[in-house]
Amino acid sequence: MSSTREPEKLRPAGLPETVRWHEREDGPLTILDQTLLPNEVRHITCHTVEQVWEAIKSLRVRGAPLIGVVAAYGLCLGTQPYRRLPRTAFLEHVRQVAEYLDSARPTAVNLAWALRRVRQRAGMTSGDAAPIWAAMLDEAHAILHEDADVCRRIGEHGAALVPEGGGILTHCNAGALATAGYGTALSLLYVARERRRNFRVFADETRPLLQGARLTAFELAAAGIDTTVLCDGAAAALMASGQVQMAVVGADRIAANGDTANKIGTLSVALAAAAHHVPFYVAAPLSTFDPSAPNGAAIPIEFRSEREIRGQPGAEQVASGVACYNPAFDVTPAHLISGIVTEEGLIQPVTPARVAEMLKRASPSA
Amino acid sequence: MSSTREPEKLRPAGLPETVRWHEREDGPLTILDQTLLPNEVRHITCHTVEQVWEAIKSLRVRGAPLIGVVAAYGLCLGTQPYRRLPRTAFLEHVRQVAEYLDSARPTAVNLAWALRRVRQRAGMTSGDAAPIWAAMLDEAHAILHEDADVCRRIGEHGAALVPEGGGILTHCNAGALATAGYGTALSLLYVARERRRNFRVFADETRPLLQGARLTAFELAAAGIDTTVLCDGAAAALMASGQVQMAVVGADRIAANGDTANKIGTLSVALAAAAHHVPFYVAAPLSTFDPSAPNGAAIPIEFRSEREIRGQPGAEQVASGVACYNPAFDVTPAHLISGIVTEEGLIQPVTPARVAEMLKRASPSA
Repeated sequence: MSSTREPEKLRPAGLPETVRWHEREDGPLTILDQTLLPNEVRHITCHTVEQVWEAIKSLRVRGAPLIGVVAAYGLCLGTQPYRRLPRTAFLEHVRQVAEYLDSARPTAVNLAWALRRVRQRAGMTSGDAAPIWAAMLDEAHAILHEDADVCRRIGEHGAALVPEGGGILTHCNAGALATAGYGTALSLLYVARERRRNFRVFADETRPLLQGARLTAFELAAAGIDTTVLCDGAAAALMASGQVQMAVVGADRIAANGDTANKIGTLSVALAAAAHHVPFYVAAPLSTFDPSAPNGAAIPIEFRSEREIRGQPGAEQVASGVACYNPAFDVTPAHLISGIVTEEGLIQPVTPARVAEMLKRASPSA
Repeated sequence: MSSTREPEKLRPAGLPETVRWHEREDGPLTILDQTLLPNEVRHITCHTVEQVWEAIKSLRVRGAPLIGVVAAYGLCLGTQPYRRLPRTAFLEHVRQVAEYLDSARPTAVNLAWALRRVRQRAGMTSGDAAPIWAAMLDEAHAILHEDADVCRRIGEHGAALVPEGGGILTHCNAGALATAGYGTALSLLYVARERRRNFRVFADETRPLLQGARLTAFELAAAGIDTTVLCDGAAAALMASGQVQMAVVGADRIAANGDTANKIGTLSVALAAAAHHVPFYVAAPLSTFDPSAPNGAAIPIEFRSEREIRGQPGAEQVASGVACYNPAFDVTPAHLISGIVTEEGLIQPVTPARVAEMLKRASPSA
């Protein structure tokens, strides 16, 4: 993978960068602080690996692909002071810094994956610290560019699905803010807009954390796309009113039969779409597929803190003594999914055979 | 209607009163300030009609039946100082105070209806101010007791539908807090509990105003019923998990064919229930039926302020330049409704003929 492409060429026009490595000594890594959106677009500069760790931990950086990219750069940042050490001592620092970063969000798959990949590149590079560190930075650049490339290809494969003059409903944030590039579900929309297709977008606010209201609406509006936010419960009524011609969402994990785990509330969108004859698409990189899970029942669902629903102490909106049910994801069965858009093309209809075929095409040696 | 029954006999055990008229000179009307729930159970005492107006205007009192009851008492409170006037002068005060109260929420049907009813009773009563005022207060008591009686009868007709050991999902607040009695949808649950049936309740938080989280969970917990709050988008996943055996909601208006307008998000609940073979019931008094609307398309839907979704100034959670779509209600088609529980019994299946039959049975002269 080349590191000569400029990151901004890999992003939709109008959007703030989520991450950038600066080739200078002081403050080399800047990231967009997403906890301040939509009210403030502020980039923070990380001078230390501790700042990167805090940014991942506190969700200033979120979205699985973006966490991977930032972690890779964070490993470079944290090992930069040791570039004059001998090989063995330097590699020990690489190990320690990687373990530290990995502890920011232990369950984030892309975090561990990106750190492992940069460490492997370090181990494969001969010589002392300086050339190893340079190779690590090259690997971090490669991770960023591969992510952006996959996003862009998802958009190119899916853009033709976006109906001219139509209304598009989406849920949560599977957008540019979750990646270093065009996003996944929203990539279809950005590419369709570049191709001068007209449409409007409806973004579910996506309780409890409001990623749709706070992030999706922000980035679509920044890109100049007509956007309207609605409460999750209003999506069915919106479809009944005839204003939605397509629904598209991202995915957190896709089973071998096409059953798709995504942000809680996605199943409701799929059921409403089916009832109102609205095509429902999933857009996700092939890395999201988990062939070891035969169907959705095999996908573990994370339950998150009741606090996200209950509200902060002193401002609770749920009576004490009442429990809160807060799964982070739900599973949409394959039969409700019109098609799955990947960087290698469209899976349609969504059947175990078609999923297997696509995965085989992408990795012919497997 | 008799006014000899004590109001607290008409409420589920454990719940705070929503309204009470005290038979003494100072501070005769107390109401529960629902804007402070669930964190504080505070009753406010209204000494003047202006306080009653403000309580209705600012949603300290909400729920159509309860607004009617409070308005009726408010008219008595506001005309109390004039009880020594001659008949004509007193009736002029009745007219003025009624018009004033009616302006608190001009679109609330029960508000105007209750005020009209008390005024009619005043006009039909002979003599000077003192006997007229006494008749007005008797009418206000009657409105309260009729509301509580209807609620109780809905619960008695529907309680048998509550599955022993089951999970019951509800949406918004069709409960005791919206009435002077047992509520409508929740009345089934209170009566079932009195009959020693065991079950647990899942309450959709009900964005944007969170009546489920703030009010339904509060009142069910106060009555000792095991209650869990969830985000609206999680209801489908909850049903998919097998934890829901029945869904029950209230109604704001029901068309002649059974199509039902209720709080936004109800249609999603009904679609998820149908997909997961969960019976979906509506519980509502016969006064909710609008035979002049042949079907749901004829029911006007109120759209409310974007602010409810966007958040307050300074704490917006939606980017500026992005619109918000905020219908207050949606329409659930009759074919998704397993049955409608009324104070006269169950409409099942929900067909135009069965609806007409029930309305005719209730008003044989119509």
